[in-house]
Amino acid sequence: MPYVNIKVTNEGVTAEQKKQLIQGTTQLLVKVLDKNPKTTFVVIDEVETDNWGIGFDQVTELRKAT
Amino acid sequence: MPYVNIKVTNEGVTAEQKKQLIQGTTQLLVKVLDKNPKTTFVVIDEVETDNWGIGFDQVTELRKAT
Amino acid sequence: MPYVNIKVTNEGVTAEQKKQLIQGTTQLLVKVLDKNPKTTFVVIDEVETDNWGIGFDQVTELRKAT
Amino acid sequence: MPYVNIKVTNEGVTAEQKKQLIQGTTQLLVKVLDKNPKTTFVVIDEVETDNWGIGFDQVTELRKAT
Amino acid sequence: MPYVNIKVTNEGVTAEQKKQLIQGTTQLLVKVLDKNPKTTFVVIDEVETDNWGIGFDQVTELRKAT
Amino acid sequence: MPYVNIKVTNEGVTAEQKKQLIQGTTQLLVKVLDKNPKTTFVVIDEVETDNWGIGFDQVTELRKAT
Repeated sequence: MPYVNIKVTNEGVTAEQKKQLIQGTTQLLVKVLDKNPKTTFVVIDEVETDNWGIGFDQVTELRKAT
Repeated sequence: MPYVNIKVTNEGVTAEQKKQLIQGTTQLLVKVLDKNPKTTFVVIDEVETDNWGIGFDQVTELRKAT
Repeated sequence: MPYVNIKVTNEGVTAEQKKQLIQGTTQLLVKVLDKNPKTTFVVIDEVETDNWGIGFDQVTELRKAT
Repeated sequence: MPYVNIKVTNEGVTAEQKKQLIQGTTQLLVKVLDKNPKTTFVVIDEVETDNWGIGFDQVTELRKAT
Repeated sequence: MPYVNIKVTNEGVTAEQKKQLIQGTTQLLVKVLDKNPKTTFVVIDEVETDNWGIGFDQVTELRKAT
Repeated sequence: MPYVNIKVTNEGVTAEQKKQLIQGTTQLLVKVLDKNPKTTFVVIDEVETDNWGIGFDQVTELRKAT
């Protein structure tokens, strides 16, 4: 009965990509730990780039700098 | 000083229902563990149905199938 | 399919008390939001009192002061 | 490689304030634990006042009462 | 710069299995969202079976019933 | 009423360092957002190095490689 929380920046993740993340994560838990997929939850959080910092910088700023 | 995080799908939870979740959870922690309600936090996250997976499927798809 | 995470300090919570927290929380989600208990998860984290701070102080210190 | 999650109520936090939270938290982890800022993440969640409870009450109600 | 948190029950997950979860999750984020693995974190939490509830029951009880 | 969760690897963080993290984080929220320290929680999680992955690798392996 695993619970997986995936946090990524909110930069245009499509419904199809979310589906692939959910399926891939669930498949991994079935394969590695023999978990029951029926009670495997995957929750995706999309975080605004202003709200995510790495190395002192907001991702918003890092994207501009690239 | 408990902290409780409730994650549910974003499907029309009303302000009144949120109030009931907050009061019920806080009351439970007072009753079972004799915690001080003044320092009991309850935070509710509403998650888009595209972002929640169970048994390989997005909740969006599960709702359509019902 | 709710997911609830309860964080409390690690101060002798018994298995029976954990059971009551799990049952009470699940019952609340069934009553307030008509959720399916079969896919309602409750996860309890017990946090060392050195690792929990409130109002600048570690709970360890607050317990001594009482 | 620390990960820090800051949850605050959604009451007009500016991009500049978020930047200060990210920089201050990262600086603290560098100073206290000598962590590498390049792999220090800070994620800020802004929570609606209806969704945050303290002492049985929604923050929305507490703000009105003030 | 994704952050993934995997919560499973504490029932003998080996270091090798943890490695597979970390590698599989990171690979998934690279493949689906083209994320940089160098800033992809995976954190695994192992939760005592007394502390995990599903369908009103502690996992400890569910395991005995099987 | 902020809630802050700090996750670091479990590599000998002392009670004094935890105190500094709690005080520094709380001070930051008071300074930047004018929050009330009495209802500011800081919770520190110490994660085993086997359970933390970055760039496909467990931190345990990264430490050996250094």
